[in-house]
Amino acid sequence: MRILVQKFGGTSVANLECMLKVREKVSAALDKGYKLVVVLSAMSGETNRLIDMAQKWSPRPDPAEMDVLLATGEQTSVALFSMLLKDKGIKARSLLGYQIPIQTDKSFGKARILDIDTDRLEQMLSRFDVLVAAGFQGCDCEQRITTLGRGGSDTSAVALAAALKAEMCEIYTDVDGVYTTDPNICSRARKIPKIAYDEMLEMASMGAKVLQIRSVEFAKKYNVPIHVRSTFSDEPGTLVIQEDETMESAMVSGIAYDKDQARITLVDVYDEPGIAARVFEPIAAANIVVDMIVQNPSREGRTDMTFTVPKSSLEDTLAIIEKIKTDIGARDILADPNVAKVSVIGVGMRNHSGVAAIAFSALKNENINIMIISTSEIKISCLIEEKYTELAVRTLHEAFGLDK
Amino acid sequence: MRILVQKFGGTSVANLECMLKVREKVSAALDKGYKLVVVLSAMSGETNRLIDMAQKWSPRPDPAEMDVLLATGEQTSVALFSMLLKDKGIKARSLLGYQIPIQTDKSFGKARILDIDTDRLEQMLSRFDVLVAAGFQGCDCEQRITTLGRGGSDTSAVALAAALKAEMCEIYTDVDGVYTTDPNICSRARKIPKIAYDEMLEMASMGAKVLQIRSVEFAKKYNVPIHVRSTFSDEPGTLVIQEDETMESAMVSGIAYDKDQARITLVDVYDEPGIAARVFEPIAAANIVVDMIVQNPSREGRTDMTFTVPKSSLEDTLAIIEKIKTDIGARDILADPNVAKVSVIGVGMRNHSGVAAIAFSALKNENINIMIISTSEIKISCLIEEKYTELAVRTLHEAFGLDK
Repeated sequence: MRILVQKFGGTSVANLECMLKVREKVSAALDKGYKLVVVLSAMSGETNRLIDMAQKWSPRPDPAEMDVLLATGEQTSVALFSMLLKDKGIKARSLLGYQIPIQTDKSFGKARILDIDTDRLEQMLSRFDVLVAAGFQGCDCEQRITTLGRGGSDTSAVALAAALKAEMCEIYTDVDGVYTTDPNICSRARKIPKIAYDEMLEMASMGAKVLQIRSVEFAKKYNVPIHVRSTFSDEPGTLVIQEDETMESAMVSGIAYDKDQARITLVDVYDEPGIAARVFEPIAAANIVVDMIVQNPSREGRTDMTFTVPKSSLEDTLAIIEKIKTDIGARDILADPNVAKVSVIGVGMRNHSGVAAIAFSALKNENINIMIISTSEIKISCLIEEKYTELAVRTLHEAFGLDK
Repeated sequence: MRILVQKFGGTSVANLECMLKVREKVSAALDKGYKLVVVLSAMSGETNRLIDMAQKWSPRPDPAEMDVLLATGEQTSVALFSMLLKDKGIKARSLLGYQIPIQTDKSFGKARILDIDTDRLEQMLSRFDVLVAAGFQGCDCEQRITTLGRGGSDTSAVALAAALKAEMCEIYTDVDGVYTTDPNICSRARKIPKIAYDEMLEMASMGAKVLQIRSVEFAKKYNVPIHVRSTFSDEPGTLVIQEDETMESAMVSGIAYDKDQARITLVDVYDEPGIAARVFEPIAAANIVVDMIVQNPSREGRTDMTFTVPKSSLEDTLAIIEKIKTDIGARDILADPNVAKVSVIGVGMRNHSGVAAIAFSALKNENINIMIISTSEIKISCLIEEKYTELAVRTLHEAFGLDK
C-alpha cells in the first residue's frame, strides 16, 4: 500500500472554489495509485472568528472549552471536503482527532502528541481510499478535545505520515516552496529544491514561516520526507529531507533575517561565577525569550554583557534588570530597539572553512557594523543596525553565490 | 444526589445576553442543591447556516458528513456556555455526543438512541456540578457522529433524564408552556398546568410545536416528568407527566387544529376485500402520509372512500390514484385542498360519555359542516372547511369550558 499524506492550509480550503482545486490534487494522487490521508486546516479566517467569539464571551476563556470551540473549525473543513470527494464517487470519510485517535497530553491549546493508533488507521485505509483528517486537534486520555497550537496542522500531517510510514508528507500552501531568502527584499531569491531538516529549522525560526517549526522537528525525529509546495500550481516545491551527500556541495543554503530583536548591554557587571544566572533567571521566569548572548573578556573583574530579546519584551526586560542592577554591579544599562539579526545558514559550512570570513567581509564592504556574532554548526548570525537589514541580506545572498 | 436536566433551545442560547440568562437558571438550580445536566441546542440560525453551506458544496450532501458538519453547531454552544459557567467558578465541563456517549444507530440525520452510558455520566456528575451536553448528537458503534433529526435536542434531554433518573427534565423555550389551544386564534386560550403524555402527543402532532413528538414518546416510555417553561420568565410552565387521578376531572384538555390537510374522495369504488390495500399501498410507497380515512357503508357493491393527505402531497396522490382508478372501479375522484382538521383532546373523555355529542352540536350551532369524523380513546377529530378553522377552534374551546 503506497501511502501519501497531503496537508492543505487555511487559504487552500478557504471556499468552495479552493476546495475544488484541492480535490484535483487528491484525484491526481489517487490516479497514481496512492492511498491518501488528507489533513485540513480550518477555512482561513475561521479560527480567528472563533477566538474573537470566545473573547467576547469570556475575558480569559477556559482553555479546555476553547479547544472544544476551536476544533469546530477543522471539523467544518473535513465534513465539507469529504462531501466533495463522495460526490465524485471517491471512497472517503472524515476523521476527527478523537476518531483517529491522535492521543495527546492534557496541555489544552498547546498539546503534544503522545501516540497515534496506526493499526486503526491502516484498517481504515483498507476500507477507504481517502481519509480526510482534521488537523490541529487531538484528544487526551479522557477523550477531551485538545489542540496542538497555532499551525498545528503541519504537525498533525507529519505525525500521521510518520505513523503510517507514508512515502511523503506533502504540505500544500499558498507559496511554492522555501526560498534562499525573502523574495520581498531580494528579487534574486531562488526556490531551494532540497533542504535539510536542520537548515529548515534555522530558516523557520527566523521567520521563513512556511512550515511550523514543531512539524520539522517531528519530521526530523521520524525521518519523514516533506514536500512543501503550492496548492495553486503543479510545479515541484521544496523537499525537506535528511541531509545527504548531494547537499554538501552547497556551502550555504539560505539567508534569513529577524527584525524582531532588541539589544540590551549591561556595562561593567561583576565578572564572577553565577552572574549570568542572576541576570537570566528572572528574565526567563517572566517568560521572555532571550536569543543571542555575548560576554566580553573580563577587564579588572568587570565585564560587559550583551543580549537580545523580542522588541515587545524590551520594556519588561529593562524593568527586571533595573531591580537587579546594583546586585550585579552594572554601571550602566544600554538598550537599543533598532537592531536586526541576519543569518547565513547551511549544513555545508560544517565542511567548509571560511564561511564566517566571507560573511564578515561582505558586510564590511557595505560598511555594516556587526554588534554581536553568534554561531552554531550550521549557522552564523550577526546583529546589525535594523536599517541595514535589506542591504545585508542582499549582500550576503550574493556573496554566497545564491543569486545564480 | 438530586439530578435535574435542563434543556435550552436555539433562541435561548442565541447570543451572549441569552446565555447569561441561561446561566441564571443554572445557578438558581445549583443553589437548590441539584447536580445538573444542561442540554443545549445550536445557537438559533446556526443549523440553517450550516445546511445552506452544505447545499452550496453538494447538491445532495453525504448524510454522514452532514452530521459531522451539523454537530459543530451544538459543539459551539456547549463550549461557549461552559466558559461562562467556569468564569463564575462553577465546576462544569462540556460533553459532546461521543463523550457521553449517546450511542445511536447508523441512520445519519435521523438516528435513534440505543444506549446511554449511565455509569460514566454518574461518575462525571460526582466530579462536576454541571455537565453541559450537546443536544441533537450522538455516535454510532464506530464513533462516527450522528444527529437525531430536527428538534432532536428535546429527545437528548429526555433520554439523559431517563438514564440518570433525574427528578425532572425542564425544557426551556421561548413560550411559557402548553396552551389549551393556539392563543393566536383564541384569545381565551389558557396555559395548561398539567398534561398527560398521551394528550401531549396528540397536541404535538397537531402542530402545537412546543415539544418534539419523539421526546414525549421517550418520556412516556421511561416515565420522565417534563416541565415545559420559558427561559425568559420564572413562572411555572406546563408539566407533562403520567396521567393521574387529578387529571380525570377535566374532560377535555385542549383543542388542536391542522390546516395542512387535503381531502380526496374516491366515488363508488368496488367494495371488496383488498380494495383499501390497493389504494393505500402505492400511496405509502411514495412516502405520503395519509391521516384520516373513512369509508361509507356499501351500496350495491360500491362504496365511497375518503381520506386526507398533507396539502403538499395532493398532486402526487392524485397522480397515483389516476393510475389505479379503473383497477379499483372508481367512477369519480373528488379532491379538495381547502379543508382543516380540528381536534378535541383529553384523557378525561375515556370516562365521560357525550364528548362527541357536545363537539358536534357546538359545530352545528355555528353551521359548520363536518366532512369526516375520526376518533381515538382520547381524541375526536373533525374535518371541516378550512375557512371555518378559527371559528371552530373558538367554539369548541368555549363549549368544553376551556375559556374559564
